[in-house]
Amino acid sequence: MPRTTVGIIGAGPAGLLLSHLLHQQGIDNVVLELRSRDYVERRQRAGILEQDTVDVLRESGAGERMDRHGLEHHGIELRFDRRSHRIDFPSLTGGRSVMVYAQTEVVKDLIARRQQDGGTVLFEAEALSVDGIETDRPSIRYRHEGAEHTLDCEIVVACDGFHGIGRRSVPDDLLTVTERTYPFSWLGILADVPPSCEELIYAHHERGFALHSMRSPEVSRLYLQVAPDDSTDNWPDERIWDELETRFAVDGDWTLRRGPITEKSITPMRSFVAEPMRHGRLFLAGDAAHIVPPTGAKGLNLAVADVTLLAQALTRYHAHRDESLLDAYSENALRRVWRAEHFSYTMTTLLHSDPADSDFDRALRLSHLRYVARSEAASASLAENYVGFKEN
Amino acid sequence: MPRTTVGIIGAGPAGLLLSHLLHQQGIDNVVLELRSRDYVERRQRAGILEQDTVDVLRESGAGERMDRHGLEHHGIELRFDRRSHRIDFPSLTGGRSVMVYAQTEVVKDLIARRQQDGGTVLFEAEALSVDGIETDRPSIRYRHEGAEHTLDCEIVVACDGFHGIGRRSVPDDLLTVTERTYPFSWLGILADVPPSCEELIYAHHERGFALHSMRSPEVSRLYLQVAPDDSTDNWPDERIWDELETRFAVDGDWTLRRGPITEKSITPMRSFVAEPMRHGRLFLAGDAAHIVPPTGAKGLNLAVADVTLLAQALTRYHAHRDESLLDAYSENALRRVWRAEHFSYTMTTLLHSDPADSDFDRALRLSHLRYVARSEAASASLAENYVGFKEN
Repeated sequence: MPRTTVGIIGAGPAGLLLSHLLHQQGIDNVVLELRSRDYVERRQRAGILEQDTVDVLRESGAGERMDRHGLEHHGIELRFDRRSHRIDFPSLTGGRSVMVYAQTEVVKDLIARRQQDGGTVLFEAEALSVDGIETDRPSIRYRHEGAEHTLDCEIVVACDGFHGIGRRSVPDDLLTVTERTYPFSWLGILADVPPSCEELIYAHHERGFALHSMRSPEVSRLYLQVAPDDSTDNWPDERIWDELETRFAVDGDWTLRRGPITEKSITPMRSFVAEPMRHGRLFLAGDAAHIVPPTGAKGLNLAVADVTLLAQALTRYHAHRDESLLDAYSENALRRVWRAEHFSYTMTTLLHSDPADSDFDRALRLSHLRYVARSEAASASLAENYVGFKEN
Repeated sequence: MPRTTVGIIGAGPAGLLLSHLLHQQGIDNVVLELRSRDYVERRQRAGILEQDTVDVLRESGAGERMDRHGLEHHGIELRFDRRSHRIDFPSLTGGRSVMVYAQTEVVKDLIARRQQDGGTVLFEAEALSVDGIETDRPSIRYRHEGAEHTLDCEIVVACDGFHGIGRRSVPDDLLTVTERTYPFSWLGILADVPPSCEELIYAHHERGFALHSMRSPEVSRLYLQVAPDDSTDNWPDERIWDELETRFAVDGDWTLRRGPITEKSITPMRSFVAEPMRHGRLFLAGDAAHIVPPTGAKGLNLAVADVTLLAQALTRYHAHRDESLLDAYSENALRRVWRAEHFSYTMTTLLHSDPADSDFDRALRLSHLRYVARSEAASASLAENYVGFKEN
């Protein structure tokens, strides 16, 4: 029967980074991933790395390609009232900034690194159940290559996302779930065209939110707020570009470059937190425990922050049988999680048009946007949250 | 038939200060006030003067008693989670602060000053209509000492509050009204007891908001969030003190001093803006055009800011027949009004418990409060709004 110290469910950035960090501390671990390697390396997700995320990847030796191909960004642009307002990160946050580098690239780098280091990452391995969580011998039952297996562990970490079995393995009455859905979704596209801007543009228009982001100097990533029941069938390429052009319109010279759209998808918006992030020997990390709407670019960064805490806690546990950091994990992680939930909610409601808004809500939103553009304190608050607020 | 240059309706702080400022520029004016002098000098209202309000009163020579009896405050305390967090104004706003000095005292000072300067303030003079607004000969029809009169003016300024006739004299279809009511009210008391704190305490408790303020070193002013349909009959003194004690409870040494309650009243909470603040020769100022919930202490200060702008505009008009500042008044005033509306709304929702709140709303509120207490940028944003954000 296979054994390991830490069984990790999910080979997204959280599971892979945890596996890598534990390996560096000499802690044996196995990663089980439902999907194929090819699938995992292709799925499009976030693309903004906070300073702390960059630091963790770099310091753990997994940041080489990121440092070669990532684009360091020193600010973002807020666009509303047909005007541009730049939020400068370094001057407002004591020198911090963010890196534009796609999550898929982080995943590729970490998989390559785990393979190079002889790590065990089983793809197409479906976790079926987590057992014995309340004992000191938890295990993961899983299916791989047509057969069922059991992986005995000392600790199980579920990095298996919102729909994974990790969170569902905790008895319902022990989890407090807080959530909110939003009356809009994001239509996201990838386009083979150089970005029309050097930094991200977060635009508020009465017709809704739009975001201009990028994957590389040749690939643009753009988003449009759409109705939650909308479908990509309703959005031929021409309509998407026209709508983006309307929402990004600004007085003065600026042109939106159009190009072939290579991917199109609609993502719902949700805020979700399950507490605590630990039950017995099972720990939850990343989307398994919490979801933020993407407006604040926090999802990936929270996942990295969770497993960074966990790696420290497991290192102390492994070296000294000292469980103090494991015991503190949920509380420590949740402080950052709730900060990100509040920031993501604030950015979302600040920038989107809610069909249920009253005239008062709309007027307050404009006053808030104008204030952020005019107040150094308000700009600094946005900036420090965007680059990652230090909760300690 | 009596004539004046500027006819002013309402002898609250807005009307009286405008009358005083115009007099200093040699501009003839008359103030008509529905109530008696005694009534006006007794009604309890706000008590926090922004730095700009203090400056205007002082520079116009109406600040002598304020400077003797007002209490300069360099900060406020936020209290939640049974802990105290101080927001220091001067260090966060480049040296600005506020003055605790009751609106009733400002009103007494201004009435005394107008009388001393030979100004015309008619008490118990009921404005019945404002006529000819769209001509250059507007007039106010009013009743005084049993007879009806007409006051011919060049300009009419309505400082007659939310329920006055000023705003109602503008055709409905020319005014855009934006408003919001809140699902709670404030029970306010005056008590003959020295304040239990040096600075104001804004407390958030799961049972609701509480505010500890003061009128003087001998008189405390305290508020409790109550249901909108509540009545002072339900609040015997003992219950009020008990509830205040619960909501202000903090770990460590702190005692709420109790004393005889001399006044008790319940005030609803409302946000309201009527735009534009001018129609023809009629200008609206203060509560006649806008209401804020009292949490941000902005109502009196907005009224003072409005008439300060108007006095400048009327001075240029009177000296050079130049109407440019009069034409710009509404837009300039509304920029500050909406800033205050947004701040007052934010403070209100941050500190009150809304019975309709979801668990998510409650968790976000706590995260927001903790963030304000921990982030210098967020504290600075609160502070700069509290002392009065410079909209220029």
